[in-house]
Amino acid sequence: RCFHFCKLPGRVMGIRLLRFTSVVIIVLLLVAGALTALLPTIKDDKLPNSRREPKTQSQSALDSFTLIMQTYNRTDLLLKLLNHYQAIPHLHKVIVVWNNIGEKTPEEMWNSLGPHPVPVVFKVQTVNRIRNRLQNFPDLETKAVLMMDDDTLVSAHDLAFAFSVWQQFPEHIVGFVPRKHISTPSGVYSYGSFELQNPGFGNGDQYSMVLIGAAFFHSGYLEDFQQQPEAVYALIDETQNCDDIAMNFLVAKHTGKPSGVFVKPVDIRNLEKDTNSGYSGMWHRAEHLLQRSYCVNKLVNIYDGMPLKYSNIMISQFGFPNYANHKNKM
Amino acid sequence: RCFHFCKLPGRVMGIRLLRFTSVVIIVLLLVAGALTALLPTIKDDKLPNSRREPKTQSQSALDSFTLIMQTYNRTDLLLKLLNHYQAIPHLHKVIVVWNNIGEKTPEEMWNSLGPHPVPVVFKVQTVNRIRNRLQNFPDLETKAVLMMDDDTLVSAHDLAFAFSVWQQFPEHIVGFVPRKHISTPSGVYSYGSFELQNPGFGNGDQYSMVLIGAAFFHSGYLEDFQQQPEAVYALIDETQNCDDIAMNFLVAKHTGKPSGVFVKPVDIRNLEKDTNSGYSGMWHRAEHLLQRSYCVNKLVNIYDGMPLKYSNIMISQFGFPNYANHKNKM
Repeated sequence: RCFHFCKLPGRVMGIRLLRFTSVVIIVLLLVAGALTALLPTIKDDKLPNSRREPKTQSQSALDSFTLIMQTYNRTDLLLKLLNHYQAIPHLHKVIVVWNNIGEKTPEEMWNSLGPHPVPVVFKVQTVNRIRNRLQNFPDLETKAVLMMDDDTLVSAHDLAFAFSVWQQFPEHIVGFVPRKHISTPSGVYSYGSFELQNPGFGNGDQYSMVLIGAAFFHSGYLEDFQQQPEAVYALIDETQNCDDIAMNFLVAKHTGKPSGVFVKPVDIRNLEKDTNSGYSGMWHRAEHLLQRSYCVNKLVNIYDGMPLKYSNIMISQFGFPNYANHKNKM
Repeated sequence: RCFHFCKLPGRVMGIRLLRFTSVVIIVLLLVAGALTALLPTIKDDKLPNSRREPKTQSQSALDSFTLIMQTYNRTDLLLKLLNHYQAIPHLHKVIVVWNNIGEKTPEEMWNSLGPHPVPVVFKVQTVNRIRNRLQNFPDLETKAVLMMDDDTLVSAHDLAFAFSVWQQFPEHIVGFVPRKHISTPSGVYSYGSFELQNPGFGNGDQYSMVLIGAAFFHSGYLEDFQQQPEAVYALIDETQNCDDIAMNFLVAKHTGKPSGVFVKPVDIRNLEKDTNSGYSGMWHRAEHLLQRSYCVNKLVNIYDGMPLKYSNIMISQFGFPNYANHKNKM
């Protein structure tokens, strides 16, 4: 026998109650949905489009870097440099981008002279293209990439320091070779180094690019590079140049800040003249620098604006090599 | 004559309708309130406990800084330095902390020699205490403070550059005088400069403090400083020293990172010997450095741990004064 609870309203009242309840529930769901859309999304510290790390990723992938070195017609220099770079602190792996089409890699010789401190992977290419080095290699396990030209030697001290700097500026290209663009009254940009006039923002010079042929950058940018407009690839392929300028455009667009952080190297050497091959590198071509100015202007068209920003920050290592290298006569 | 609309339910139905509507509204408000609490709070770029800026704050308060200079018994140097600092780019105002108790400030003379580029405020103190300069002055309108000792001249070029660096590292003390602490096997810390052994983290030296007697820092830290344990004030008052070490502890605790960023000065001068007063500054006291080691250990006790962190980043200005100051023989 039920008393109060059973004193249900009439059937008509029951239907009205049901209807009101449904309306209430629907309205609540709509409001909740609308407000939920305003909740903050979980911040991911990776770059957009970067692959999510597996939870089992080892510590080493966070505290070490992968050297990517593209090589063409200078295998003697390559091997000399591999002996140097294989032992750099915090190096995880070396990826050699083998642009010597049809030629065997030195992998056999490499193995016969083992053991080695780190694994070296030879990526055989099918076409000799400068942008081969900017592929998103599946062999990459680290967040950081160190990209080096196959004729450049940077001391372990410089690299260890620059890597620690990159860890503090992971969204920037942290490297040893600064360059800049300048505006001209005609609106046409020109590319150069410090021999060009200063951009005119206060005292001193500024740089707006750090070249990737001797620099650390986040591996996520290789992934981003695969998503660029076709015209970028066409430009790089046409000139066999400017992949580094394109990367600086990409990074500057991504961060809204200067793309690079310049670390002043203590010991950086160009081994070009030491090669037996007689091959002397793309930058000796007559049109090399003109091409780079051309690329800057083309990229501004492609990206519909100039994303590069200037910086005048120059980083050196406190107390090294000279423990009193910051001393003031106060 | 109304037809459908007037066919109101009975009085009882009307009350039920009203009741349901009220319930719906109340539930919706509760849900909305709950979800709104989950919405992201507007990110304030000020430090916690910093006062909220009035909406009418001018652009200048963001792009300029306030010079705070404490002075005792060196009014000749003060006036010389005021002539220099009053014209530094991006200076908003000068606050002179007048520790000459009972003595008239040079305000009359200052005014008679006007006009001046910026306002100067003389804050007359009642007790000659070193931590007077760390008050949260209501005259402060800028986010940035430049704190200078009254015997230190830093060139306008250095200051303009360091200010631009501070704007990129606003939570750090950006300045010209690096110092460090070192651990010893006994667990007792010692304080010093680069003549002390390197802390032993890789190559070269490290610094863990940047002294505030020639540095930029966020004005919010002055507010934070008012919230420190009483023992900190007692320590500073007892030693008439270490206010800068205490500030570095505060900043390091706040950020969890190295407190300072060292900018290598091109032109920094100590004018001590130039004073007519014969007064030569606290750091000449025999016990000065021993006091500072003592302060480091006391502060570790007070804060229950060592928050200072090491850095080896040394920042210089690219292409200034020498436009080729980063040139490599590659």
